[in-house]
Amino acid sequence: MTERILALDFGGTKNTAALHVLGEAGWRAKQRVFSPPGAEARSDIETMMGLGHALLGEHRAQAIGVSFGGPVDFNTGRVHLSHHVPGWEATPLQELLASEFGAPCSVDNDANAAALGEYRLGAGRGCRHLLYITVSTGVGGGWILDGKPWRGCQQLAGEIGHMVIDPQGPECLCGKRGCVERLASGPYLALDAAEALRAQPDRGAGLQQLVDRQEGDLTAKLVARAARGGDRLAGELIDRSAGAIGVAIGNAANLINPELFLLGGGVTQSGDRFWEIVRRNARKTALPEIDFEILPAALGDEAPLWGAVVLAEELLRI
Amino acid sequence: MTERILALDFGGTKNTAALHVLGEAGWRAKQRVFSPPGAEARSDIETMMGLGHALLGEHRAQAIGVSFGGPVDFNTGRVHLSHHVPGWEATPLQELLASEFGAPCSVDNDANAAALGEYRLGAGRGCRHLLYITVSTGVGGGWILDGKPWRGCQQLAGEIGHMVIDPQGPECLCGKRGCVERLASGPYLALDAAEALRAQPDRGAGLQQLVDRQEGDLTAKLVARAARGGDRLAGELIDRSAGAIGVAIGNAANLINPELFLLGGGVTQSGDRFWEIVRRNARKTALPEIDFEILPAALGDEAPLWGAVVLAEELLRI
Repeated sequence: MTERILALDFGGTKNTAALHVLGEAGWRAKQRVFSPPGAEARSDIETMMGLGHALLGEHRAQAIGVSFGGPVDFNTGRVHLSHHVPGWEATPLQELLASEFGAPCSVDNDANAAALGEYRLGAGRGCRHLLYITVSTGVGGGWILDGKPWRGCQQLAGEIGHMVIDPQGPECLCGKRGCVERLASGPYLALDAAEALRAQPDRGAGLQQLVDRQEGDLTAKLVARAARGGDRLAGELIDRSAGAIGVAIGNAANLINPELFLLGGGVTQSGDRFWEIVRRNARKTALPEIDFEILPAALGDEAPLWGAVVLAEELLRI
Repeated sequence: MTERILALDFGGTKNTAALHVLGEAGWRAKQRVFSPPGAEARSDIETMMGLGHALLGEHRAQAIGVSFGGPVDFNTGRVHLSHHVPGWEATPLQELLASEFGAPCSVDNDANAAALGEYRLGAGRGCRHLLYITVSTGVGGGWILDGKPWRGCQQLAGEIGHMVIDPQGPECLCGKRGCVERLASGPYLALDAAEALRAQPDRGAGLQQLVDRQEGDLTAKLVARAARGGDRLAGELIDRSAGAIGVAIGNAANLINPELFLLGGGVTQSGDRFWEIVRRNARKTALPEIDFEILPAALGDEAPLWGAVVLAEELLRI
C-alpha cells in the first residue's frame, strides 16, 4: 500500500506543504507560499489546506505532520500563539487538520521538528543525544535525548536563545540583557551594524559599500559578507554572535552532556571564522572532560518539514 | 525476607556508611568517619569496608548503593578521580565493593545520588522532572528527567556550577570568568569576603566582629550570618551568590523546562533574602510562560546516602 504523508511547515512569513510517500527518497511534490502582508491565522490555515488538497489530488493522506513556528502543546496539537502572525491564539490546529483531511495529525514546534528531522534523516543520524540550534530571525533549539524529542514539562524546552550569558550586555526586546538571541540573531546583528555604522563610519567602510551597492536594507547577510571581506566593524559583530552561540553551547554541554550540537539558520553561514569562534568558545566554556561535536545541520530549511514527516510516520507506527 | 541495603557516601572529607532495611523508615545504623589529613583512596575504601562489615554484623547485604563525591562512570561503577582525595584515578569501586561484600553494587556521583534521593524520598516526590542543585564547597547538579536520572552521554551532565553567566566576572580556578561556582560557592564567598574586608574594612564591620569573636577562619557561614545581621559587605556577597544561582536556574528552565528545582547545601541556608533573590532572578531569566518551582531540598546532607539506597533497591528489582 502506498502510504502518503502530508507535511506542513507554518513558518510565519512562508508556509510550505509537501507530499511524501513512505519508502521513497525526497518529495513527490512540494509547494511554498509566502504569506501576504496582513495575513492572519485563518487565511494561512485555509491556504495550507488548499495546498494540501492540491498536492494529494484524488488521494488520501494516511497521516499529517506539522511544524509550527511558535509555541505548541504537542500532546493536544494546540498552538499557543504566533509571534509573527495574529490570530493563532489557542488554535486547535491538530483537530482542524485531522478533520479536514480525515487523517491522524501530529503538531510540534519548528525547532523540535527540525531536531527530529536532522536526527532521523540529517546530520544527527546515529547519535542518540543532540541539541539542534537555529540561528536565524530568532535563536531556538530542539532536544533529542535518548533518541526521543525532549519537550519539557510544558513543551517549552530548548529555548537556548533566552539563555542570559552577559548581564551587562545590550537590552533585548524580551526585557533581559545579554541573552543569546540579543547577541547572535540576524535582526539584532543588522540593527547593531546600522547603529555602529552611524557612529563609526570609517571602521565599516566595506559594509557601507555593500549597503550602497545593494540599495536596500542592511541585513545580517550583508554583515556576514562584509565580515568575510575583511570589514572590521562587521567582523566584530559576527564574532560576537559566534562567541555567544559558543558560550551557550558550552553551558548546555555542561548541563546536559549530549554528544552533538547541530547548527542551522542563515547566520551560521557566515563563514569559517564564525564556526572557529563557536567551537573555541564552546570548548572553553565546557569542562575539559566533556566531549561533544558541533556540526552544520544537513537539511537546511527543509529540516522542519522532514521532522513533520517523522512525526506523521510515528502516528502510523502506533 | 529481610532485605538489607548497605549505603555508602564517599564525601571527600567525610565518609558515611549506613544500613537500611527495606520497608523500614530511617536507618538501622549509621556511622560517619572524617578522613584524616593525608588520606588516600585506598585508606578511605578500607575504612568504609570496615564500617560496612561492622554495621552488617553477621548478616549479608542484599545490595550496595554508593554515592561518590566526584566523576563516576555509572555503567561500570568506575571512579574517574576525586578532586579532594588522591589515588582515586580509575578505581573500579563497584567491582571492589561487590567482591568484598558478595552483593551487587551500584555507584553514582553525589549530585545524581542526591537528586535520586530527593526525587524518591524527599522534596521531589510526585514530580517527574527536576534539577537538584547543591551550593556548598562547589556547585553541582543532578537531573531527574521523566522519572529517571539523566546522566548524559558520558555521565557528566548536571554541571551547572560551570555555567558561565558573567564573562566579565572574577576568574575561577577552572580558568573561566564568572562561572556559577566562582560567584556562588562557599569557599569563594569566604575568599572574596576576606579580600573585601581588607579593602573596605568600614563596610564590613559586622563581619569583622564575627570573625574576631570566632577567632577562626572567615567562612561562608560567617558571611551569611553577618549578612543576616545587616552587614553591607557580607550582604552584597550573599546577594551575588543568590543572583548567580537564580540566573543559572532561569537558564536551565529555558533549556530543559523541568517542573522543579531543589536547592541544598550550606550556602542555601543563608536566610530568606537569599531565597528571594534566587527566585526573583530565576523568574526574570526564564521566559514568562515557563513555570517552575524552587524549593529547599528535604533530606539535607543525607540526600546522597538515601540516593544510594534507591540505587541499591533498583538492583534488587531487576
